[in-house]
Amino acid sequence: MEKIRISLAQVNPTVGDLEGNGRLVERAICAAKEAGADLVALPELVLTGYPPEDLLLKPSFVRDNLRTLDAVADAARDVAAVVGFVQPDGRRLYNAAALLAEGRVQAVYRKHLLPNYGVFDEKRYFEAGYGIVVADLGGVRLGITICEDLWGEEGPHVACAAAGAQLIVNINGSPYHRGKGTQRRELLEKRARDNGVAFAYVNMVGGQDELVFDGQSCVISSDGTTLARAAQFDEQLLTFDVAGGAVLGSETSHVGEPVEIVGLAAGSGPKPPVEAAVAPELDAVGEVYRALVLGVRDYLGKNGFGQAVIGLSGGIDSALTAAIAADAIGPGNVLGVLLPTDYTSQESLDYADDLAQRLGVESVTLPISDAYEALLKTLDPIFRDTPWGLAEENLQARVRGTLLMAISNKTNRIVLTTGNKSEMAAGYATLYGDMAGGFAVLKDVPKTLVYELSRWRNQESEVIPVEIIDRPPTAELRPGQLDTDSLPPYESLDPVLKAYVEDFESIGAMVEAGLDEAVAGRVVAMVDRAEYKRRQAPPGVKITDRAFGRDRRVPITNRYRVPSQ
Amino acid sequence: MEKIRISLAQVNPTVGDLEGNGRLVERAICAAKEAGADLVALPELVLTGYPPEDLLLKPSFVRDNLRTLDAVADAARDVAAVVGFVQPDGRRLYNAAALLAEGRVQAVYRKHLLPNYGVFDEKRYFEAGYGIVVADLGGVRLGITICEDLWGEEGPHVACAAAGAQLIVNINGSPYHRGKGTQRRELLEKRARDNGVAFAYVNMVGGQDELVFDGQSCVISSDGTTLARAAQFDEQLLTFDVAGGAVLGSETSHVGEPVEIVGLAAGSGPKPPVEAAVAPELDAVGEVYRALVLGVRDYLGKNGFGQAVIGLSGGIDSALTAAIAADAIGPGNVLGVLLPTDYTSQESLDYADDLAQRLGVESVTLPISDAYEALLKTLDPIFRDTPWGLAEENLQARVRGTLLMAISNKTNRIVLTTGNKSEMAAGYATLYGDMAGGFAVLKDVPKTLVYELSRWRNQESEVIPVEIIDRPPTAELRPGQLDTDSLPPYESLDPVLKAYVEDFESIGAMVEAGLDEAVAGRVVAMVDRAEYKRRQAPPGVKITDRAFGRDRRVPITNRYRVPSQ
Repeated sequence: MEKIRISLAQVNPTVGDLEGNGRLVERAICAAKEAGADLVALPELVLTGYPPEDLLLKPSFVRDNLRTLDAVADAARDVAAVVGFVQPDGRRLYNAAALLAEGRVQAVYRKHLLPNYGVFDEKRYFEAGYGIVVADLGGVRLGITICEDLWGEEGPHVACAAAGAQLIVNINGSPYHRGKGTQRRELLEKRARDNGVAFAYVNMVGGQDELVFDGQSCVISSDGTTLARAAQFDEQLLTFDVAGGAVLGSETSHVGEPVEIVGLAAGSGPKPPVEAAVAPELDAVGEVYRALVLGVRDYLGKNGFGQAVIGLSGGIDSALTAAIAADAIGPGNVLGVLLPTDYTSQESLDYADDLAQRLGVESVTLPISDAYEALLKTLDPIFRDTPWGLAEENLQARVRGTLLMAISNKTNRIVLTTGNKSEMAAGYATLYGDMAGGFAVLKDVPKTLVYELSRWRNQESEVIPVEIIDRPPTAELRPGQLDTDSLPPYESLDPVLKAYVEDFESIGAMVEAGLDEAVAGRVVAMVDRAEYKRRQAPPGVKITDRAFGRDRRVPITNRYRVPSQ
Repeated sequence: MEKIRISLAQVNPTVGDLEGNGRLVERAICAAKEAGADLVALPELVLTGYPPEDLLLKPSFVRDNLRTLDAVADAARDVAAVVGFVQPDGRRLYNAAALLAEGRVQAVYRKHLLPNYGVFDEKRYFEAGYGIVVADLGGVRLGITICEDLWGEEGPHVACAAAGAQLIVNINGSPYHRGKGTQRRELLEKRARDNGVAFAYVNMVGGQDELVFDGQSCVISSDGTTLARAAQFDEQLLTFDVAGGAVLGSETSHVGEPVEIVGLAAGSGPKPPVEAAVAPELDAVGEVYRALVLGVRDYLGKNGFGQAVIGLSGGIDSALTAAIAADAIGPGNVLGVLLPTDYTSQESLDYADDLAQRLGVESVTLPISDAYEALLKTLDPIFRDTPWGLAEENLQARVRGTLLMAISNKTNRIVLTTGNKSEMAAGYATLYGDMAGGFAVLKDVPKTLVYELSRWRNQESEVIPVEIIDRPPTAELRPGQLDTDSLPPYESLDPVLKAYVEDFESIGAMVEAGLDEAVAGRVVAMVDRAEYKRRQAPPGVKITDRAFGRDRRVPITNRYRVPSQ
């Protein structure tokens, strides 16, 4: 009975770093060889990083990616490799997978299905491919597909199975959102069973601007059983053996597309057995926490920031942000800044200090009242005889933003903003104030999930003082202020935001689902009004099904109001 | 000989304003009737406004657009109408044109070619249509196509001509950039001659976030002659007569797609003759000025701002911004604010005052040194014993941004920022400082064009003091500072920016085109580094072939460096 060994290289490439990504691939090839693999699969567009966006419009970028492919191909000796790259054909580009062996490109598969929804813009750049590639590796027939191909019921796996493929290697740049792992696994199980073929699914890990890739590479047998799975959010090489019986299915009778069949030699000699490892999955809150940590670590690391500065208010958002930052880059690289006014309560200061100590981050207190008063005095010709109000509240937030940015400029620390998705949705945030910074850690995290994440982080030890979690939320921009002065309670707000922001539901549908009509109407109007603010927000990690940003492209100038029915 | 009359309604819809856009269409139908027209054509997606973006993902929005279509159809009696709308078909959407007559929808054409490049994302929303519609109107055969359809050599005009269409009504939501009018006219001439068919091209006018639609609706005979043209940037009803001979061409022999032929009655009775009007075209600089004025007027008007506030520095960028704002919303609605430090020269203050007087805008002076010093003092625990530098320069800019935003909040005026495209490209701008505001008027205007526009505006009378145009550019953030301390001279900078930002050219290609290699290398690195700033910039009017924003989607996290060869 034939037996071959395959490694799935769950690596963390960087967009645009052709040389670095090439080295990453070469190291993976090397590691796979050491593991005795006959073939190693790397993620979608691993050479360019994903998504390369408009870099694809630079001819030199496409050309340089081909040079990198040549270099990588040269390393693929004694082991075959499947490597994602951009293939030009005249003026057209293809999202492609090269099958490398014996030091050169043996075949190229071009992605059939191009996602152009949500965060994806692939039809902006790529043409749809046609035809399939099946490789014969030591008697085992392997099909190759790319990411979205898997999501179409009639995707190229059908033709691959018809052409006798027993295992389909599907390479991915599949971004994370909550529960995506389960969604993918169910899909893979269905495709495997429907087509009677096993799947080897390899995904990248790492953060790229607003996206985080979670890995979870896996091997699914043709009866839908998960045989092996790599961990979430970590680089790993997942190696498994394929033998005739257990993993591979029978042929199907579909009529396929033009097939290119490539013969590859499998390594000879006995190999030490590989134990199938199925990494445990993180719980529903833990996976979000890990996504945020990785998103922050990579945004900072890949953009050259070793240190961060965070305004600490004594509230839960800044506490959680600081905890994530400390976990991402180490507490020694995080500076907390307390920026109190006369409205700031002593307990806020105490809680913030306590937090900093528990996290082990340095903190400094810069009282802002003098600067605030000086700005108010400067504004006197215009503010004189007007009632105190929103302008004065925002001014405090902007003094804080200005001070944090000054510290950023002076010390080369990136400012991490602390606002959550509920605030960002409702417009309960100040442009150039608490929204000022390089990365918005909780931008896609609803307030109710901020609480869950804080409790999750406190499981082992109380890193975030429990008083911070238990106190009622306040911006402390005027005496006795509470968030509920301006917003519905978060338990009422968040379900409306989910329905409206993520699912584009009508108010009628929300009411049918049991939400309060008055709250829904009020919240929807707030979301609509705040689009202009979000357009100037820093990037932040996408963790829901629909984040603000490229995922949700709503015009600023927009007179449409969702009807109540 | 048959003679029919057609009106092209060059109107200004607002995205999302289904009811308002419906009224706009009804008024156009009414006006066309009064002009004795047999048919009136309105722009692409006129009912929803263009581009509606993710509003299309709201089922209620699509449903409400159908209701509006029904209402509009009811008004189309005694005159036929072609009206752009969204047609759902199960879960699919089509960018469609309804042919209305006798109070109901007679036929629907679905756009074949969907642009998904530049600023366009139509494949995110729409399916490509198939089949054509030809109407017989009083013996004259009319084809209907939509915008991008025109740009494909083998677009549906070929099938329309094959089906005997003598005139093709092409409805548009075609955004402006420099020279687009000429590009369109040359294209129309070619399509007309190649297919032996006349074209009636109708485009919308108005601003929508970063886009401006310039109108220039026109009628082109089958021999490529421009018979009539509406003005740029203004709402107009362009009416023309079609008679058998001069305008219409002969049949072609192409084999067409499935054709739906609709018979329409033409109005009876003699009509007063219409004189063909060919509106003169603005010159190359004037059209940009008008685009900026309309972009500002509509962004403010459609978002509910009647008044604006602008920081006046005594430099040319803020001077031109103030002139455009005054032309857009009236000088009485513009407030200029002088925000001097100790580094501000007396001549800067004098020039700014002079400008305000010439424009007739109110101005106020708020010296910022006290506030700046108070902020520095607040920062002392961190800034102590560090050399004065970028942090202190940015702090001044951020004090100004904070003051302008405070005035905005207090007086409900929108802040118009004054930075130009050259600065935005090179990163020579301060986030939350001079970049703080609701709309960035000159965001897509290179500095060299800022000079041309200022001179253009001064043609009739010296609105912008000539001293402002002639002085060397300076940010005045430290003594004796000049832009050329940090940037190459703008005459060297702008051609590199055009090559790199708009055309994605390599440094090698720039050098071949005669640009300086050292300057090119330096500028390209500046552009790459500043992506994060641009991501948080306010929207501004697109006037070049490639603006920052949705037009140019470059990742922030990006290690690719354009090779020098």
